[in-house]
Amino acid sequence: MKVILYIATTINGMIAKKDGNSDFVSSEDEASFNKICRNTGCVIMGRNTLEYFKSLPIESWPNTDGIHIALTSSKSLSVSHPQIYFTDSPQSALKLAEQKNKSGIVVIGGSKTWGSFMKENLVDEIYLDIEPLAFGEGMPMFIGGDFEIKLELIESKPLSPQTIQLHYRVKK
Amino acid sequence: MKVILYIATTINGMIAKKDGNSDFVSSEDEASFNKICRNTGCVIMGRNTLEYFKSLPIESWPNTDGIHIALTSSKSLSVSHPQIYFTDSPQSALKLAEQKNKSGIVVIGGSKTWGSFMKENLVDEIYLDIEPLAFGEGMPMFIGGDFEIKLELIESKPLSPQTIQLHYRVKK
Repeated sequence: MKVILYIATTINGMIAKKDGNSDFVSSEDEASFNKICRNTGCVIMGRNTLEYFKSLPIESWPNTDGIHIALTSSKSLSVSHPQIYFTDSPQSALKLAEQKNKSGIVVIGGSKTWGSFMKENLVDEIYLDIEPLAFGEGMPMFIGGDFEIKLELIESKPLSPQTIQLHYRVKK
Repeated sequence: MKVILYIATTINGMIAKKDGNSDFVSSEDEASFNKICRNTGCVIMGRNTLEYFKSLPIESWPNTDGIHIALTSSKSLSVSHPQIYFTDSPQSALKLAEQKNKSGIVVIGGSKTWGSFMKENLVDEIYLDIEPLAFGEGMPMFIGGDFEIKLELIESKPLSPQTIQLHYRVKK
């Protein structure tokens, strides 16, 4: 099971403003994000990220025809997407993806969900799209505990003249 | 007066571990850092960064033959470097550099010093060297208040197969 984190960030590791707004993400970044999610066919997201996508039509979800797994302890979420599953830990999300015959998953946020996969050392690859701005305060990339993870840079490429994508493998 | 921030960071915007240790910085990163500091001939640093350099011989300072300005309210610091000046705000540091006939300065850290220059919108360019690792907790790049600053990517280049340097201009 290959676990990929896909992250869009400011230059100082903020993934959203204090209010959760991430409207700084470029269209080139979104296109790359949607392509990787759809190729993989299975995405995992936290409760807040799910709340964001709930407001969008299903054809705008990053993984329209695939499986979505939401990490939440809530049993009362009303979501109309036909292929969404709820679970309460990174490990149980991965088990669920395996049961659905998936060989890879993309973890699409937010900070607590990415942080929990990193802390449990479950990540194989990271895509990092760096947008040209800096926030003094905001949502940091990882929340939920300490870790130190070494990476290997696989590729660096421009998604546009202003957005750089770094692709890393996690050293294990 | 051109104001440059030179920053080495993890992929998630941490510039040091919780204890202040930044031994993850690569030798290629250090070589680029020293070159830019020496070309500019004037560096500004905060109190903690000065404490770090105090422990090193002068020939290992990033700007051996140039001017060093330390941002600190302390008047009791003992430093043996022949060209070091003390001041207590970003604005007074820039005024001092002008009086010394400098046309540019490099702000070399740490988080509070970089944060204060960003918050006051005094920065013209940023060099960001991204090292291949992630810390769950640590010293964030900017401390000291909120701001939102838009940048323009001037150049992206590898300093080594594992370290990417992004060079930005601040949009004003």
